[in-house]
Amino acid sequence: MKFVRFGEAGQEKPGLIDATGKLRDLSAHVGDLSGKTLDPAALADLARIDTSSLPAVSGNPRLGPCVAGTSKYICIGLNYSDHAAETGATVPPEPIIFMKANSAIVGPDDDVIIPRGSQKTDWEVELGIVIGRKAKYVTEDEALDYVAGYCVCHDVSERAFQTERHGQWTKGKSCDTFGPTGPWLVTKDEVPDPQNLPMWLKVNGETMQNGSTKTMVYGVKYLVSYLSQFMSLLPGDVISTGTPPGVGMGMKPPRYLKAGDVVELGIEGLGTQKQRFVADE
Amino acid sequence: MKFVRFGEAGQEKPGLIDATGKLRDLSAHVGDLSGKTLDPAALADLARIDTSSLPAVSGNPRLGPCVAGTSKYICIGLNYSDHAAETGATVPPEPIIFMKANSAIVGPDDDVIIPRGSQKTDWEVELGIVIGRKAKYVTEDEALDYVAGYCVCHDVSERAFQTERHGQWTKGKSCDTFGPTGPWLVTKDEVPDPQNLPMWLKVNGETMQNGSTKTMVYGVKYLVSYLSQFMSLLPGDVISTGTPPGVGMGMKPPRYLKAGDVVELGIEGLGTQKQRFVADE
Repeated sequence: MKFVRFGEAGQEKPGLIDATGKLRDLSAHVGDLSGKTLDPAALADLARIDTSSLPAVSGNPRLGPCVAGTSKYICIGLNYSDHAAETGATVPPEPIIFMKANSAIVGPDDDVIIPRGSQKTDWEVELGIVIGRKAKYVTEDEALDYVAGYCVCHDVSERAFQTERHGQWTKGKSCDTFGPTGPWLVTKDEVPDPQNLPMWLKVNGETMQNGSTKTMVYGVKYLVSYLSQFMSLLPGDVISTGTPPGVGMGMKPPRYLKAGDVVELGIEGLGTQKQRFVADE
Repeated sequence: MKFVRFGEAGQEKPGLIDATGKLRDLSAHVGDLSGKTLDPAALADLARIDTSSLPAVSGNPRLGPCVAGTSKYICIGLNYSDHAAETGATVPPEPIIFMKANSAIVGPDDDVIIPRGSQKTDWEVELGIVIGRKAKYVTEDEALDYVAGYCVCHDVSERAFQTERHGQWTKGKSCDTFGPTGPWLVTKDEVPDPQNLPMWLKVNGETMQNGSTKTMVYGVKYLVSYLSQFMSLLPGDVISTGTPPGVGMGMKPPRYLKAGDVVELGIEGLGTQKQRFVADE
């Protein structure tokens, strides 16, 4: 099932995309796609609703981030061996983790604001894992029991803020609007092999990233288990699992985004995003 | 005014400490100490209530974290020149920032759980800034307009997770219960000079840290302004501003916490915390 949140920012309603691609309103059945609603069993209950009985939503409303109630947005660094190579780094012996501020989370097609003073705003298409149940000290074998599903994440990054302004990466990852998330929360039953998903990203129509989760170093099960050794993962938490090659920083010469650029990205089966990059007035 | 949140975890009620030190229930006047309630003007309204009209709370209920609705918990690294020296680091030319997971936040006197596999759990007393209004691109001069008040933060840290497990510090800062916050949210009118607050920390009664916010490298106004250049600070966000010398990692030989240890810490005018450190069963 493909769940969505639609409507104005901060006032999104829950919905789903039916088998014909139509957006339908779920708000008579559930308050929001957050907390206990994300438990895999609760999502399965929602999936049993006769979708034809749900009100169709007319027009093309804005889509919000596909999950609400995110307490933390954890990102994995250098998790594709070929991306690590392009940035001049080696694959780490354990996953590198950092946080993106929750205040950066936006809908999949919202404008992305290039922050004041930015010269090096960059793109990164990533597979997102959405946690469905509290996970603590879980094994790899049981990891998927705690996963609600998957989504597309755009881990927008300001490379100078990230690497030239001293200290930790979070500084270049947390700018407002740097976390487009969605369009859909696709339940895991529709993603039988999360380690074999083609993914791509285009800037102004030109393909920049063209990879697959096949070349991920630390896979979904490993990451959920690994992170849960350090901290509780809560329903609604998002894990953005790293990006394949083709980021602007890795080009010779490097290439960065400027106001007016349009970025489109997607992952097979998980939908697409499209953002206009704009200056911060 | 000293605001508190009291009651069982997840079900805290808002309260205040009156001039005689008595805990009084504010829940007839405000839902929780979060969001718009934290606007300095709204807090000033609450402070005008005749405290003797508020129900006194009997007994010694648990105190929760002194603020709710925290969307991000930002920590500043190496922000005391003498602490930087003891850890073998130099003071950075810009503030180092990292995030502590919100899932780590607990009350000031809650047990702190030493995570499985930890050998190097360490202490850090810190001054916390609580944001009261959305702050974006604010100047140093106006920074305090966006601050609700101050609190004690214990930035508990696992040094091996932080520095030996590859990548970013967040891994050693985000374990469950690693963020005791409170006891009080002290409004800024009661803290005329946040850069002159004595602070201390004891382990099993022995003083380990004995410093002052006087030796902070980047002060409160600077930090609020600086961070707001990178991201919006939202009501309820906490900035933990770094620790003075005396952490376990800096001792020769280093000294770390073990199950059964009791840590007490405080900042003048902001109250004290006391935690028992326990093993993770």
